[in-house]
Amino acid sequence: MEIFEEIKPLRTFLAGKRNQSLSIGLVPTMGALHQGHLCLIKASMADNDLTVASIYVNPTQFNNSSDLDNYPRTKGEDLKLLGQIGCDVLFIPSNEEMYTGPQNLKFDFGILDKILEGKFRPGHFSGVALVVSKLFNIVDPDRAYFGQKDYQQFKVIARLNDELKFFVDLRSVPIVREESGLAMSSRNQRLSKEARGNALLLVESLNFVKTEIKLEYLELADKHTLELMDQVVNPQDAILLIAAFVGEVRLIDNMMIAEE
Amino acid sequence: MEIFEEIKPLRTFLAGKRNQSLSIGLVPTMGALHQGHLCLIKASMADNDLTVASIYVNPTQFNNSSDLDNYPRTKGEDLKLLGQIGCDVLFIPSNEEMYTGPQNLKFDFGILDKILEGKFRPGHFSGVALVVSKLFNIVDPDRAYFGQKDYQQFKVIARLNDELKFFVDLRSVPIVREESGLAMSSRNQRLSKEARGNALLLVESLNFVKTEIKLEYLELADKHTLELMDQVVNPQDAILLIAAFVGEVRLIDNMMIAEE
Repeated sequence: MEIFEEIKPLRTFLAGKRNQSLSIGLVPTMGALHQGHLCLIKASMADNDLTVASIYVNPTQFNNSSDLDNYPRTKGEDLKLLGQIGCDVLFIPSNEEMYTGPQNLKFDFGILDKILEGKFRPGHFSGVALVVSKLFNIVDPDRAYFGQKDYQQFKVIARLNDELKFFVDLRSVPIVREESGLAMSSRNQRLSKEARGNALLLVESLNFVKTEIKLEYLELADKHTLELMDQVVNPQDAILLIAAFVGEVRLIDNMMIAEE
Repeated sequence: MEIFEEIKPLRTFLAGKRNQSLSIGLVPTMGALHQGHLCLIKASMADNDLTVASIYVNPTQFNNSSDLDNYPRTKGEDLKLLGQIGCDVLFIPSNEEMYTGPQNLKFDFGILDKILEGKFRPGHFSGVALVVSKLFNIVDPDRAYFGQKDYQQFKVIARLNDELKFFVDLRSVPIVREESGLAMSSRNQRLSKEARGNALLLVESLNFVKTEIKLEYLELADKHTLELMDQVVNPQDAILLIAAFVGEVRLIDNMMIAEE
């Protein structure tokens, strides 16, 4: 596997390959590779003559500096996995190589980067769009591969690709799950054994809502005014409320946050 | 137990009691009584000289006629339970006794009856306020008892009591749960054995969100545009998305509604 830490030699290398009419697939990652990433790389290897994986923990897409600090980094393990699977090229740049100054351009995708992830991670998708733009321009891939777990990210990148006319063929690859059902994520490394059990609530909630239950709401509210809240400020003032159809029967329940 | 089906003889009876300076507690119900109701009646019996329970499935608070038709009715069983517990008075009126015409006054509580239950059951709280106003005026209780499960209903009735100056002492009684954790509800009678297991997701979700997981969103969206949706119109177009902190680790997941 060819490993590049700098943009220029990578571009020279890839220009040579492109001159031989070889097709290029790009798999952008933040490292801490798991089976989900390996599926992306396998998909790229099946479609393209040459696969470039990138490992770069992009600071501009973290809206929270402790989340950036705590993001898992397992470079030795990553290099081993990429070698084993037969990835052709790894691009693993430094921050200095990717960002020349502290002032970064911002993207605004309208409602698309304000809802869901965007609502809770302001600036996240602007950072994603920025780093993906850089990678598309550096690598100039024919195809690029992204995991379906980051579904909204894919929609943002598709808009970026369309509006900026990159003409990259974007591919979304299905979620890879652990045997338990937990969606694979680099962040899973940070879960304790107990937390890993609790984390199954995500897929269980999706499964239940999908198959058995029609959730109408699950809201946190001020227990005095019933004003809806995004997070608990004072536990004494907070109540959780839920309503769902179980089959044809509509049930409600609630719980005070501070009660025993 | 004294049983009244008509307003006038009930009022005459209660006026006599009030002349003896007896305090009166009211427990409005829609019948299909369970332990939750019995706790309300016990609370009233502990606080008051005389307890009046009402059983009336109030049509104006059902926004959906099949929900009204399917609401459980177990009059024989209810009378037995009320007798056993020692309830003093039962008021069990007909629709004709409670409503004289098809035109009903509507209440508007601003945001309070538009969110949570109000969002999914338009008109529900107006109907609740209407029947509670009738019952307060018919019984003129010192205190009235409501279950905490219908938390928003209690807030609506408190507003009603305050704004219309009923001066009833309103009491909210904690949720009674089955051994499994399922909140007691007359509607539970309609659950199949399998659905009863699935229904535990409500309390489990509340418990998880409260203790272990900080849910950021659980949303249904159009898979093409990511427009958020309240319900599935075409399963082929729908995706469920979830994000939550499990301890300090932020996880996301998603699932297509139509996928296998």
